[in-house]
Amino acid sequence: MKSRNKYDLIIVGGGAAGYAAALYAKRYELSVLLIEGETPGGETANAGLIENYPGFDAIDGYELYQKFRSHALKFGAEIQSGRVEKVTQEGHQFKVSVGGQGEKEGLCIIFAHGQARRRLGLPSEDRLTGKGVSYCVTCDGPLYKGKTVGIVGGGDASVKGVNLLTEFVHKVFLIVMLGQVNAEPINFRLMQSKGDKVEVLYHTQVKELLEESGKFAGVKLSPGYQGNDILKLDGLFIEIGAVPDRALPASLGVALAESGHIHVDQFMRTNIAGIFAAGDVTDATGSFRQIVTAAAQGSIAATSAYEYLKILNPKS
Amino acid sequence: MKSRNKYDLIIVGGGAAGYAAALYAKRYELSVLLIEGETPGGETANAGLIENYPGFDAIDGYELYQKFRSHALKFGAEIQSGRVEKVTQEGHQFKVSVGGQGEKEGLCIIFAHGQARRRLGLPSEDRLTGKGVSYCVTCDGPLYKGKTVGIVGGGDASVKGVNLLTEFVHKVFLIVMLGQVNAEPINFRLMQSKGDKVEVLYHTQVKELLEESGKFAGVKLSPGYQGNDILKLDGLFIEIGAVPDRALPASLGVALAESGHIHVDQFMRTNIAGIFAAGDVTDATGSFRQIVTAAAQGSIAATSAYEYLKILNPKS
Repeated sequence: MKSRNKYDLIIVGGGAAGYAAALYAKRYELSVLLIEGETPGGETANAGLIENYPGFDAIDGYELYQKFRSHALKFGAEIQSGRVEKVTQEGHQFKVSVGGQGEKEGLCIIFAHGQARRRLGLPSEDRLTGKGVSYCVTCDGPLYKGKTVGIVGGGDASVKGVNLLTEFVHKVFLIVMLGQVNAEPINFRLMQSKGDKVEVLYHTQVKELLEESGKFAGVKLSPGYQGNDILKLDGLFIEIGAVPDRALPASLGVALAESGHIHVDQFMRTNIAGIFAAGDVTDATGSFRQIVTAAAQGSIAATSAYEYLKILNPKS
Repeated sequence: MKSRNKYDLIIVGGGAAGYAAALYAKRYELSVLLIEGETPGGETANAGLIENYPGFDAIDGYELYQKFRSHALKFGAEIQSGRVEKVTQEGHQFKVSVGGQGEKEGLCIIFAHGQARRRLGLPSEDRLTGKGVSYCVTCDGPLYKGKTVGIVGGGDASVKGVNLLTEFVHKVFLIVMLGQVNAEPINFRLMQSKGDKVEVLYHTQVKELLEESGKFAGVKLSPGYQGNDILKLDGLFIEIGAVPDRALPASLGVALAESGHIHVDQFMRTNIAGIFAAGDVTDATGSFRQIVTAAAQGSIAATSAYEYLKILNPKS
């Protein structure tokens, strides 16, 4: 496949799963285009300090993403930025429309575009994003040196976020809807050791985002904090999980799990021949989604794509 | 669990899967004993140059094993050498006998002991092992500088072995039972580029190992080579795959696949509560067994073990 618009394999998404798939596919000598999407590096790049990717006892997520990327580049993967707007199937060909950059053709596809951060769904949330409201502690935490901030959450990511924020802020409130948090014990214990710097508000919901002069200024809580509905904050981080983008796979007829994740078998095959999936966008390991599991799934998806192409075109 | 003979989790095997499981289990703050077995580092340590573990574009297998090991140690895993001779279950307790070092108790078990190298099954094979016959190119290849050697194989490992041997030897014969080899294209192409240094004998079997003064001296082939049954060789490497040790899991009633591998679900659970498995010893990814898939399975198995212990002992 020599034309620069035609590839054996197109990978949608440039996180741990996508890059591992690209690496393996190049080892199989396929022509490979990886489309990074709007959040290059995916969850890996935004994860902050990573201590649980086997082999690196402590590495910054962005640095690990760079390693994944350069590893795939070294073996010849082509990488393109841009958002995949549409994928259509015509027989044994997939046409992929990339934002403003025309159409690419692939003989098979790996969906590895992960998940998008879940939003609170409050009226001014969109407008205040970037003006005091953030979905990425690692990215924006350092902006709040000496300030008082909140995190809405309840999972491990929110506790990791609290721990990171204590390095910068004066005080952080963790606002939890339920009566407990579900975090890695090692992270929870670290949070508990932070003393007065951290206050956890259980059974508490954010009802409204407050605004002053076009910037975020605090939250209205239910129930209130110390008898007051209003909690003034300099910044708010929203860490309430993520949801997969189901539109692209669904448009092709790919079967989804109830949660909206792409349903795959142990070889990362979907219900449609030629379409594979890997990483956080899949239901491969239930709700357990890690960098190392995403990378492994990428390697498996690439191998299944290679097996598929051998049957599709035995002479190549 | 404070006694030094009692653990939340005992991991049998110290390759990529075992160490990833130990790392994750320690992040969950379980007490963990990993028993390395007789081949510390498993297939990772013997793999030679590794170019497909995402994040390291080229690393020696032994070095990667050391990184896995020190990563798990950093988070507090206990590591013990020795062979696991017997595992018995009494209610919610497993008793593990380790060669010459008494008994350890665990509330759950992860089997991650990989596979053993397959042997040709020829009469003098055992006796000549270490005397010209080897199962590890990476370990013993450098001993054959300027010599003529053979490899019995047909899979990717044998082709990687040929490529490594060409750095040392005068000539290497790859002896393949079938009419083709099943290798990563990138490795096969590299072998093809070696010219006269490599000769592949297809449809050929080793019928006998020849001996001179107690040392390996060559092979008897069927059919012969250039009209002669006898091919004189200075060394022979046997790279015909590996088989899982089924005795330990079978003794506990763990369900095995037809291939002898431990049958696991997507969460690395076996048919027996409290017994999990990860890595090459399982059937989790069919015949596709990689370092990154083993590591991912280790992380999943540890997570399932943690979930199991939470239910077993809700107060801990």
